[in-house]
Amino acid sequence: VERTLTELALYLDAELRGNKDRVITGCAELNNADINQLSFIYDKKYRPALIQTKAGVVILTSSYLDECPVDALIVENPYLAYAKAASLLSESQEGPVGIHPSVYIGENSSIPASCTVKANAVIADNVVLGENCTVGYSSVIESGCRIGADTVIMSKVTICHDVVIGRRVLIHPGAVIGGDGFGFARDGEHWVKIPQIGTVILGDDADVGANTTIDRGALGDTVVGNGVKIDNQVQIAHNVVIGNNTAIAACTGIAGSTKIGQNCTFAGGVGVVGHLTLVDGVHITGMTMVTNSISEPGVYSSGTPFQKNSDWLKNAVRFKQLNKLFRTINKK
Amino acid sequence: VERTLTELALYLDAELRGNKDRVITGCAELNNADINQLSFIYDKKYRPALIQTKAGVVILTSSYLDECPVDALIVENPYLAYAKAASLLSESQEGPVGIHPSVYIGENSSIPASCTVKANAVIADNVVLGENCTVGYSSVIESGCRIGADTVIMSKVTICHDVVIGRRVLIHPGAVIGGDGFGFARDGEHWVKIPQIGTVILGDDADVGANTTIDRGALGDTVVGNGVKIDNQVQIAHNVVIGNNTAIAACTGIAGSTKIGQNCTFAGGVGVVGHLTLVDGVHITGMTMVTNSISEPGVYSSGTPFQKNSDWLKNAVRFKQLNKLFRTINKK
Amino acid sequence: VERTLTELALYLDAELRGNKDRVITGCAELNNADINQLSFIYDKKYRPALIQTKAGVVILTSSYLDECPVDALIVENPYLAYAKAASLLSESQEGPVGIHPSVYIGENSSIPASCTVKANAVIADNVVLGENCTVGYSSVIESGCRIGADTVIMSKVTICHDVVIGRRVLIHPGAVIGGDGFGFARDGEHWVKIPQIGTVILGDDADVGANTTIDRGALGDTVVGNGVKIDNQVQIAHNVVIGNNTAIAACTGIAGSTKIGQNCTFAGGVGVVGHLTLVDGVHITGMTMVTNSISEPGVYSSGTPFQKNSDWLKNAVRFKQLNKLFRTINKK
Repeated sequence: VERTLTELALYLDAELRGNKDRVITGCAELNNADINQLSFIYDKKYRPALIQTKAGVVILTSSYLDECPVDALIVENPYLAYAKAASLLSESQEGPVGIHPSVYIGENSSIPASCTVKANAVIADNVVLGENCTVGYSSVIESGCRIGADTVIMSKVTICHDVVIGRRVLIHPGAVIGGDGFGFARDGEHWVKIPQIGTVILGDDADVGANTTIDRGALGDTVVGNGVKIDNQVQIAHNVVIGNNTAIAACTGIAGSTKIGQNCTFAGGVGVVGHLTLVDGVHITGMTMVTNSISEPGVYSSGTPFQKNSDWLKNAVRFKQLNKLFRTINKK
Repeated sequence: VERTLTELALYLDAELRGNKDRVITGCAELNNADINQLSFIYDKKYRPALIQTKAGVVILTSSYLDECPVDALIVENPYLAYAKAASLLSESQEGPVGIHPSVYIGENSSIPASCTVKANAVIADNVVLGENCTVGYSSVIESGCRIGADTVIMSKVTICHDVVIGRRVLIHPGAVIGGDGFGFARDGEHWVKIPQIGTVILGDDADVGANTTIDRGALGDTVVGNGVKIDNQVQIAHNVVIGNNTAIAACTGIAGSTKIGQNCTFAGGVGVVGHLTLVDGVHITGMTMVTNSISEPGVYSSGTPFQKNSDWLKNAVRFKQLNKLFRTINKK
Repeated sequence: VERTLTELALYLDAELRGNKDRVITGCAELNNADINQLSFIYDKKYRPALIQTKAGVVILTSSYLDECPVDALIVENPYLAYAKAASLLSESQEGPVGIHPSVYIGENSSIPASCTVKANAVIADNVVLGENCTVGYSSVIESGCRIGADTVIMSKVTICHDVVIGRRVLIHPGAVIGGDGFGFARDGEHWVKIPQIGTVILGDDADVGANTTIDRGALGDTVVGNGVKIDNQVQIAHNVVIGNNTAIAACTGIAGSTKIGQNCTFAGGVGVVGHLTLVDGVHITGMTMVTNSISEPGVYSSGTPFQKNSDWLKNAVRFKQLNKLFRTINKK
């Protein structure tokens, strides 16, 4: 897509310095951008790259303006403005391409003409797609699913039966939404499966990463709020509830029936025990083990710092002697 | 499926209080159930919901009977009885639907007429399916696999070549059974792949979660026992052996050639080093790092408790000084 | 494939003791091998098995020769020699089988006649495959991908648009190469997606495990070097750069823009924070949390040792009191 600097300034509510008719066709990093490309700076470590940039235009705050050798779009939040500009410039101009002949479609499913369903996809019985949805190559949408307008399902996604997905949702390859939760009752030495009768309700504007799994509820539903962003290889267990605009980085696992507030962030590799409640505004650092409910907003952590293995071995063995040490010292 | 309270009481070996002809058609939580639904109570925290329930019948122990305002099925283990009742009520009444015309079937494969193979599945050469199996949409069963009767493979599963799967197994979407183990020999700076010649043997009544991976053996096989229940995104490396009725929660990884006993449980996010032996009846708490063999049954843990980040930072840095502290104190 | 001991000795540059015309058809462990099979010993714990082996031939160092009751191939590195011999013996004799009629092929894609593309695969527009490639059942190669010669893509892999893959690469089922990176800018309470405009460049001789995810770059590319071996369920975030011949075990996650050197090894379950630099020759033990750059080669670790839960609980609570303890002691 081509945009002039005037169009970009208007769209971003930015102040323009430079050639208002310059045409921009894409984005690149400061040190790689050419005269037809837009770039941005949001951190002073990129200052050397700014000074030498050959970009057509740079998005920046006024504090960098003097150092910018090319045209500039001046905003308060360059990172956000870049996100918006890059989206505008990468917008697809393709219209819907309809349903490929190789697609399997079950009975009573409703697929508007504005949708695109790519080769080898499966849309089972009683599925309802909203307007302008895309279903990628080889994805499977099982029976009874309802999917909101403008949602994009990439290649090779599995949406299990009766899952409800909002509008403008983006689901990446390999994600599985609505697999059975992990629920069993003990019968002597054997496990008896508890049928997972609930479903998953995924809110508007949610993103689900590649190979992420979100299990359906046992009784009642697993609920992911509006605007929730979930990275790759995240595991959301049955009956978890996640508040709006919470973001969860890769490899995090959240156990069953835990409730997470709004506007929380989870760094990568976090584990959260089941049946907890975390309030709004909780931020968990990477690889933290959350074993209790959290009633105050703030930043939480666990784990130990990494060291050379030879040092770590000496300290780690002491961990097992900690209680004894404290008892000895407290006696003194 | 419809069942009368008489039928349910008989099936569950339960004592019935109430209308023996009442018809139940499904299950719901105490606070959501209507007159046609069954519910259950197994923990006193649900007592307020019990007192107000509008369920058709509640499964409970006799201790809750006085507080139950509706019909009741009295048992010793309500959780287990609920699992059985819910399974009975959610049983599919559909017969087999045969092999969809879009399915690719290789040479010399045997698929009984009692099986269902859904659209876009692949069944390669020399595959043997038992009676009453289901293969879900877009699943791939590579050449030489043998799959026992009554096994259900959901959508988009991959069973690699020559894998052996038992009876009544349930495999969730995205699981990969029989991928190559991670085995390489060093040749100077380069890695030379060691062909993974073994396979995977998955016992009867095993469950495998969504996007879980179970690698084939290098030489000899990876063996998962009968009744083993594996959650989502679990990684089982080559030549691991898992004893009967062990349960493994999500995001756990077990490294190569480790042997795990029967009736063990692994909470989520556990890591187990390779070439270990864990006896029967070992229980590992969440995110524990198991670095040595375990010869006594019991509960094992590692890790540090989570705290506010500002407190954690102060304590974590002290971890690196632990050995020095102990040496200083021991000198005194 | 059949090979005589003479052929094997020549291929492995080994000294042969025994019947030079003996024919070997496969491999097995020392205690399972029969007269037609090759086995090997690389660790003294297998000595009892060696003494009783019925293998046709054993690969070993000269130090085991006296104890070997059967023919022997004497080498310096038996593990490496076994890897090479097993590869030779398991080489497929099948020629290419062409493109299955069920495969969807988009416009302007180039697939040499020496390639095999299996049933239900998708090859979208403008894809270029090298000579002798295999694309497995139900895999998806999106538009614009370029794939080098002799690369093998197993079943149910997703290669997203415009990804570049080298020669002799092996990609296991369920892997997703080139999904969007996890990049958002905050706009008040909402997240605005940052288009992920870069791609993934995967070097020659790389291996990618089952259900592993490698995200495309935000701006600029994610780059995986030559000979890099990646196990199952590994997550490589956007703009990560991995040096040649580095090996990464299962369940490891590497956050965005981190640069990893050559000849590094990561054990399972490691987490690496974003925007770090790790030099060549860094080795990280299992489940370590890497929170800072590493400028010296060596072995690094974090975490605490596992214990009986009852002991662990007492020690873990002391972790939260560490800083206070140090302050008290330092005052004395």
